[in-house]
Order: sequence, then C-alpha cells, then structure tokens
Amino acid sequence: MALRVYLAGPEVFFPNAREQGEEKKRICAAHGFEGVYPLDNEIRDAAPLHPEGLAQAISHGNERLMRGADLIIANCTPFRSVSMDAGTAYEIGFMRALGKPVFGYSNIAAPYAARVRATPDAAQAAWCTETRRADVEDFGLAENLMIAVAVLDTAGRFVVRDVAADRVLSDLDAFRDCLALAQRVLAAGSV
Amino acid sequence: MALRVYLAGPEVFFPNAREQGEEKKRICAAHGFEGVYPLDNEIRDAAPLHPEGLAQAISHGNERLMRGADLIIANCTPFRSVSMDAGTAYEIGFMRALGKPVFGYSNIAAPYAARVRATPDAAQAAWCTETRRADVEDFGLAENLMIAVAVLDTAGRFVVRDVAADRVLSDLDAFRDCLALAQRVLAAGSV
Repeated sequence: MALRVYLAGPEVFFPNAREQGEEKKRICAAHGFEGVYPLDNEIRDAAPLHPEGLAQAISHGNERLMRGADLIIANCTPFRSVSMDAGTAYEIGFMRALGKPVFGYSNIAAPYAARVRATPDAAQAAWCTETRRADVEDFGLAENLMIAVAVLDTAGRFVVRDVAADRVLSDLDAFRDCLALAQRVLAAGSV
Repeated sequence: MALRVYLAGPEVFFPNAREQGEEKKRICAAHGFEGVYPLDNEIRDAAPLHPEGLAQAISHGNERLMRGADLIIANCTPFRSVSMDAGTAYEIGFMRALGKPVFGYSNIAAPYAARVRATPDAAQAAWCTETRRADVEDFGLAENLMIAVAVLDTAGRFVVRDVAADRVLSDLDAFRDCLALAQRVLAAGSV
C-alpha cells in the first residue's frame, strides 16, 4: 500500500488551493505515494459555525490527517516574511514528535541568516523595535534550527532551489525533488 | 512535585537570553511551576562541532527538554514578521502531538489578519510577489489557526496584551497571566 504523505504548506491560502493540492497528489501518485492535503477535510455544517468553531474543525481535521499519514513533505518557502508559514512549522513539529519522517523544501535558496540580513529592519520589525537587538541565528541552515534539523535528520538534506519570483510559492520542481529523495531514503530504510 | 513548563520563545536570540530565562524561571517558581529553558542544555564539546553539528545538538537537546516537560508556555509575539518565530511554532506542534497542554501569549494584541492588512506588501513579500495573491486567514485569531486552536483547546484563551514597542519581545506581564491561567486550568483538571 502506498505510503501517505501529508502535504504541508501555505498553498492552502492560494486562490487555486484545491488545484494546487490535486496537482501535488498527482505528482505523489507518480512517485508511488498517496498525497493527503489539508483541504481534504470535509468540514460539515460549516455554515452554522462561528469563525472560531470553523478554525477548530479545520485544525482538528488536519491533526487527524497528520496522525493518519506516514510522512510529511513541507513547503518551507518564506511566507509573508523571512521565515516560513507558522502553521507549516507547527505541522513539522507535530509530525516530528510522532516520530514520522520529515522532508522539506524551499523555493528560496538563500539560508535564513542571509535572508534576515538582506531584509531591512523596518520590514522585519514593524511590530517591535526590540527585534533589532536579537541575534541572527546563523548555522548556514535554510530555516530555524528546530525545523532544519528535523528535516536533515530524516532526509540528509533540505531541498532548496531558486525559481522565478512570481512562482516562488507554487513552483513544484523542489517538491518533485523531495518526493524522489523520500523514495530513496525510505527505500534505504534508514528512517 | 512542581509541573515542568517548557519556556518557548524567541528570547533565546536576545543578547540577554540567559537573564531572560532566569527571570522566567523565577516567575514560574513563584507560581508553583518549574521552568525549563532551551539554553539549559549544556552542549558539550561545542568547539569541535561544525555549525550543523552544533545546530543538531541544540535541537536534540530542546526536544529532550520538551519530552521531559509537562506543558509549554510559548511567546507567540510576532518576530521579524507578521507571524511568530517559526521555531516556537514548531515546538507548539511538537508538544501538541505529545498531548501536552499548550499555553500561548503575545505582546501584540492585534489579530493575525489585522497585522497582515497593516503590513505593506513590500514588507511582507520581499521574497515573493506571489504571496500577494494569497488569502489572508481571518478567523479573528491571534495566529495561524493550527497554533491558535492548540492554545484555545488547552487554555480557553490566547493571552494578548499591548506593551511599549521597545519591550514587545521581553515584557513578561502576559507570561505571568499565562502562568496564572495554567494554574487555574490545570487545577481544574480539564486538560
């Protein structure tokens, strides 16, 4: 039976979120995996729910999908900031705690520290002048070390690429590389 | 025996990170908890480690501390962006998957959607013009719904405050509120 891959990433916020999920699932199938996408959750009776109730139903649904999945492939491309989507970071931690393999990719190849240094203080710290005093974590890694190490422990590498600016969140070549890597790593049985 | 609280947040990046940790631990003790802080890890033989090896040692140490802790209180204040620190988001997901209570606070009271709308496109999306097409998640919550729901399920509320801009990351009044909330919630035995 095909291993189930939880497809984490900020593409759920795209206007074409469902199409993006279907495309990722097709690519999974072509690599012998079954893709599981957050929008697979059918939220029943959504209409009567107040916003907090709907958020809760979505969150619980996603956690159910993660518990039923065998591994996660996370789109760690910076989202609205120098860092990745916070919800996706949460999901990587969730799967890591369950002992499941974590693969990650980014369509921005520059490491985290380089991204911070390239971003003006005013853009980073609109909320807080105090942030400017904080050290820039610099291990040469693609993301915060908790995330990067979870990926490196599983996969040996964090897949990064540079793609055109208008395709940074949706380009799927790095995702394909991750699936090929997952095939090799899981076939080798090292995780 | 005092319950152990994992103290998650971007203050580990501060020049005064250790002092901040000691202060949080003192406040924990005053509320009957034992604080566990990421910098409690003694990384031995750090000097010979290359940066990736050091990152791995820190990450594994933090995961050990989390597995040994009974609950997490996370500083979810926006860090270098409209969103919280990605490493802290990871740690919330990690503790949630282990079934441990999750408390969170932010020193910015504006909900996530309001923060995004108040941030110029150029500041949000330096890396990616495509981000501008993404929907703004708007459930009236303090953070991405995966994080907010984990907190709300445990605590009933996400503690938010507004403090002076030069104290946004380090002010500890909301942290104190979280500890008082944790006392009440855990004493009630509902989580």
